[in-house]
Parts: sequence; structure tokens; C-alpha cells
Amino acid sequence: MMDKRISIIGLGMIGGSLAMALKRCAACDMEIVGYARRVETAQEALRLGAVDRVVDTLRDAVEGAAIVVLTTPVVAMQELFKEIRKHLAPGTIVTDVGSTKVDVQRWAKLHLGPNVTFIGGHPMAGSAAAGIGGAKPDLFDDTVFCVVVEEATPEPARAALKQLVEWIGARPLVMTAEQHDQYVAGVSHLPVVLASALVTAAATHEQWPSMSQLAAQGFREMTRMAAGSAEVRRSLCSTNQQAIADWIDRYIQILHDYRTHILQDDSGLLDLFENARLARRHWVETRYKRESP
Amino acid sequence: MMDKRISIIGLGMIGGSLAMALKRCAACDMEIVGYARRVETAQEALRLGAVDRVVDTLRDAVEGAAIVVLTTPVVAMQELFKEIRKHLAPGTIVTDVGSTKVDVQRWAKLHLGPNVTFIGGHPMAGSAAAGIGGAKPDLFDDTVFCVVVEEATPEPARAALKQLVEWIGARPLVMTAEQHDQYVAGVSHLPVVLASALVTAAATHEQWPSMSQLAAQGFREMTRMAAGSAEVRRSLCSTNQQAIADWIDRYIQILHDYRTHILQDDSGLLDLFENARLARRHWVETRYKRESP
Repeated sequence: MMDKRISIIGLGMIGGSLAMALKRCAACDMEIVGYARRVETAQEALRLGAVDRVVDTLRDAVEGAAIVVLTTPVVAMQELFKEIRKHLAPGTIVTDVGSTKVDVQRWAKLHLGPNVTFIGGHPMAGSAAAGIGGAKPDLFDDTVFCVVVEEATPEPARAALKQLVEWIGARPLVMTAEQHDQYVAGVSHLPVVLASALVTAAATHEQWPSMSQLAAQGFREMTRMAAGSAEVRRSLCSTNQQAIADWIDRYIQILHDYRTHILQDDSGLLDLFENARLARRHWVETRYKRESP
Repeated sequence: MMDKRISIIGLGMIGGSLAMALKRCAACDMEIVGYARRVETAQEALRLGAVDRVVDTLRDAVEGAAIVVLTTPVVAMQELFKEIRKHLAPGTIVTDVGSTKVDVQRWAKLHLGPNVTFIGGHPMAGSAAAGIGGAKPDLFDDTVFCVVVEEATPEPARAALKQLVEWIGARPLVMTAEQHDQYVAGVSHLPVVLASALVTAAATHEQWPSMSQLAAQGFREMTRMAAGSAEVRRSLCSTNQQAIADWIDRYIQILHDYRTHILQDDSGLLDLFENARLARRHWVETRYKRESP
């Protein structure tokens, strides 16, 4: 028992929740070790029972671990790979929870060396809460967890990550890094850009001072994603530039299509609205099990 | 007292709420008369105390009224103008609550004749509830009510509509029909098109079956406006075609701008996001008095 170890690097909301979810799982027979740059964070994780044990150095965290999970933001990943490389034992599986995958996979290949296996991960779960204080063991329950592979990814690494995903209560969905980044560009990054662009289009209009008094609930909802940090939005775009640009192109084509049918006021417009309504309803019913829209 | 009459044609959610708000207002010294095509609706309005009196015919409703308020949908307005024309006494003020104004104003000029004054209205208040059962006296409290004029609109008509708007607890905002339709195209109709177009772009992608499993709360919120009736959306577009098309053009220009800066990953991208964030925050704070985003 407990002869194998999962080391979680970074004990924020995601890292902390991951640790708690593993601790909660009776089937998980591995020791959960945590590392955070700030001693206070590590101590708090220990106090909350999120981990079995904390360590003071990256070296102690990764050396001899069966699985290392990096939960730091994508932008910090490259440096982290360089730091941990020399401490990783041959055969260790390294994974991450970053929100884009092509860059991370390329950096892993570049910096981790051939004796360890990198396999990317991305839990489709989030929360407005931040830090270890916002962590909770059920964060991943019934959510999708992307398991990001390439052809060369060995079967034991795939099996180990799928196992870990099931331990935390999530559902593994296997895809390539390119697929992943294209998908999240469409369903997550594009909506962020669209929301900001709507504010820009409206608020830079010379009549905005009058017009803004007519804006109501619909405008508010369609721009809510423009409300957060500009820095976060920029770095989200910077790790997925081409995929987002491709989705903007696709979206503009669709908008041209709507525009044409609006000016013609024809049945094609009705079809566009109706097909969108039905597709969304199908998605909501499948994903949220018949909750209201 | 009560020698002057306001007749409300149509006793749905908006018409019923308007009647109730006038009845609630101590300063309003006019009789509130209601007319609905369905006898049951009129009786229910009477039972709810929404109106002082109901009448059985359009003729009885408009003949001798000081103010006639049409609360039927825009698409029904042209026929209604033709029907009421012969019963309107000289000097009557006719207004409406339709959601677009250029068409309605043109039809009024075409069909109502020179002896009555038409002045358009549009309350920026709504509710998911429909029908007289969804009507409530406080629907317009602290909302903006567009008073739609042209140069030739006589001062007494402007004063009368502004008075009515204040009686129902709303704030009159005076503008032309062209301004109105351009404003609502930007803050209300464009968002509807954007939401549907996002569903179309995603759900017609060949990878949608996989991708849809990654879509979450942000996608759901950005597409909620695509959930309603396609017929309603089409007729909304059909009365405001050019203004919506112009806003789509403007929006596409802005999207191109975002796209360029995303590929350059430059400070211009940060500025776009940050200016959008600040503009939205200012709007939310002004309009919703510091409620959360």
C-alpha cells in the first residue's frame, strides 16, 4: 500500500480540488503529496486534509513520483518543465491541467527528455473561487476531463491518466492536442472574444451615451464574459492564436450568411434561427439533463 | 374629472401592465378603457382591476378618446391603423409600444390621416410572462421609455406622451424613429443574431459531437438568446433589416480588429479587452446601480 505516489505541483483551486477528490476516492491506493511555492498554501492544504503530505521543494515532490500533476497556469509551464527535468526518475508520468495543449505538449517534448512520458490533461470544470480556500472534492463530479494524447503516447500512460480521471469522479475524453485547442477555441475562447467585441462595437459608437440607456438584460448577458481581467483574456488568446483566428473566420462567414438572409427576409433566415434553437436545445438537454435553458 | 379617456388596444402583458400602472397612479386623472379581441381577456382585465371599463368594439374604444395606445405586435400594426382610422376623432393622439419604429411611423402617416397625431413609444421593459395574467403595475418602474418624434410632432402630443410615461413610473427618452431603430439594432437585435450565429458556427462544425462535450457555462450563457421562437426572431429582423445589417457590418469590422491583434499578440489586444471591460463596468454601474456583473 501507498508505495506509489501522485505529486501535485501547485495547490490552488484546481490543484487543491484534485488532491481532495483523490483523497476522497476509496479506490485510489496511492499517496497524495502536495507542493506549493508558498509555505502557507501547503500548510493550509495539509490542514484541510487535501493531501497526505506536503514537501518543501520541487525536487522532493517529483523525485520518485509515479505521476506528477502540474496545475500551474499555461504561461508558467515551460519554466516549470525546465526546473523539474533533472529530478524526474525514468518512467514517471507527467501530466498537467492547462487550458490549451499544443504549446504545452511542444514544451514537454522540448524540455522533459525521453525517459519520462508526458500526457496532457484538461478538466472542463471551473469555479469563480480561487486558491486552496476555493478547493472542493466534488469539483470534477460528472464533468468531462480531456486526456490529450499523440500517436506515440504509450498505453500505460493513457491508462494511468484515465484511472486518475475516474478516481476524481470525472469522465475521460481522449483527443489530440490539436483537436483540443480547436474545440476550446470554438466553445470557450471564441465566446470570450465575441462578448468583448460586442462591447467594443456598441461602446465606441458615437451614439452610445443615448443607446446605452436602451441596453438591457440581453446585452448584459451577452457581454458578461467581457467583465473579467484583460490580462487573463490576452494570455488565453496568446496560447491559442491560430485556432481562435480560424474560429473568428468561420464565425464571420456565418454572420455574413445571417446578414444576407436578414436583408432577403426569406425562409433561409427562419431555418437558421430554428436550426440554432434546436441544436442548442439538444445540447442543453444532453449536457444538463433537461434543466431549463 | 374623468372626462378624458385613455384607450388601450390589446390587453396582453404590456397592455395590461400599462393599464395597471395608470390605475395605480394618483396623478392620472383620465379614465382607462380597455379593448381586446378576445372577450375573455377583456373580462379578466376588468376582474383584475387593470382598467376602469372595457368596450366590445374597436370603434367604441377609439371614438372620442384623448389618447389611444396600441399594444399589439409591430406586424399587426398596419392593419390596425386601417381599421381604426375612420373612428378616430380629430385631435386624438395615437401611440404604440412596438419594438421598431421606422415602419410603424411610416404606416401611421400612410393610414391615419392628418387630423390625428401619431407619436411612437417603446418601453424598455419586458418579462418572460405573457398575457394579461403576466401583467403587473410595476413593470415600468425606473425603466426607460422611448418617446419617438419627428420634427413635425406637435408639442402637445410630446407633452401628453411624456406625461403618460411619467404616470406609469418610467423615464421618457426622446429620439427619432431612425435613431431608435439603430439603437435597438445594436443593443438588442444584434445580440440575438450573435447568439444564434454562435450556435450555428459550433453545431455545424464536423467535430461538434466531440466539441459539444467541452462546451460549458460560458457557451450556454452566450447562446441563451438563441433559445426562443424562430418566428419571433425572424419578424424582429424583418422590421429592422437595414439597421441590423449595418450593425453586423460594424461588428465584423471589430472582429477583424480583434483577430489581427490576437495573431500579433500585442498591447493592442490588451487595450481592446481592457477598454471593453471598463466600458461594460461603467454601463452596469450606471444602469444597475452597482449590482454585481
